[in-house]
Amino acid sequence: MRVLVTAGPTREYLDDVRYLSNASSGKMGYAIVRAGLELGWDMVLVSGIVDLRPPSGCEFHSVVTTEEMRNASVELFGSCDGVIATAAVCDYKPKERVTGKISKTGDPVQLEMIETDDVLAELGAKKQKRWVVGFALEAQNPRENALQKLRRKNCDLIVLNHPSAIGADSNSVELINASGETEQSWSGSKTEISKELIQWLAKRVV
Amino acid sequence: MRVLVTAGPTREYLDDVRYLSNASSGKMGYAIVRAGLELGWDMVLVSGIVDLRPPSGCEFHSVVTTEEMRNASVELFGSCDGVIATAAVCDYKPKERVTGKISKTGDPVQLEMIETDDVLAELGAKKQKRWVVGFALEAQNPRENALQKLRRKNCDLIVLNHPSAIGADSNSVELINASGETEQSWSGSKTEISKELIQWLAKRVV
Repeated sequence: MRVLVTAGPTREYLDDVRYLSNASSGKMGYAIVRAGLELGWDMVLVSGIVDLRPPSGCEFHSVVTTEEMRNASVELFGSCDGVIATAAVCDYKPKERVTGKISKTGDPVQLEMIETDDVLAELGAKKQKRWVVGFALEAQNPRENALQKLRRKNCDLIVLNHPSAIGADSNSVELINASGETEQSWSGSKTEISKELIQWLAKRVV
Repeated sequence: MRVLVTAGPTREYLDDVRYLSNASSGKMGYAIVRAGLELGWDMVLVSGIVDLRPPSGCEFHSVVTTEEMRNASVELFGSCDGVIATAAVCDYKPKERVTGKISKTGDPVQLEMIETDDVLAELGAKKQKRWVVGFALEAQNPRENALQKLRRKNCDLIVLNHPSAIGADSNSVELINASGETEQSWSGSKTEISKELIQWLAKRVV
């Protein structure tokens, strides 16, 4: 079993200093990589910039932007049996990146933002016989939005969590299947939830 | 001697998940706090979110946004003899913060950004007999821009460094006075530069 895990945030730069990002810590993804390694799986980690040490024994790839995460993930997915996409990628990026530093003038600045590559949708579209587990971070209508995300991105399963999970050590999640049914609900530390998820997958998808 | 140090980045949220920020690590400011403590000074640290442990013995205040950094700094400055402002605050923030998470529609999004509070300028305007050391991170025309920043913000001294300093362990800086003269140039680890700066200040401003 060889599994791709995406983790952490991405950054999208406005200029050489300022960027858009989010507070994703990478803890969930790194814990999943550790849980997979403990089961003897080959784990491939594509991570945005976080302050965690990559788990010993994983194949590690560091990225900054969503485009870099897309390129690394698409390339590595071909050699994997499945993907668990925990990364909180920037969905938007500035249309243009300014060289140097935008100077202050006292006036408001209009920033045009365009959508970034949809990494999960692209992996879903290319999955063939591979399995795809997405993560959904939903504030409103969580179950409906998570299920829509699962279908739009051709996932087999989606793990629903709340924005309060960002950066936290613990989490409370629902594992939702393609029929919209909640397969499992887990609460606890991200380490505990990761072990549950990996053991669940080991029984079902291997 | 009681010295205020601002450090790290600030964050300005677009919605409950996404924010504008920069890669400031806080290393320079935290090293300056350590150097001051070693000299027996009282050090007051106002820090954005970084992955450093506050130096033991400092008075520590944690902030997220530029407005929070402004409020904490203005309040604490009154009880200090001077300030060393290393923080890389967000100069811009979204005009409105959306509750929840902005949904993707496929279309570009226009983001109106307005300038944040100018923390350093406000401390400069209120300094009376206190001394103010600013930091300038300049990509183009560095000395001219740093000197203009010093004058505009009523600093006594400004430490000029380059955007490549962001997040790095070492740095190369010039200490520029209000006449535009380079008082000192230092290169080395941020710890070494901090000791040089604090020792220089101890001779001149105490």
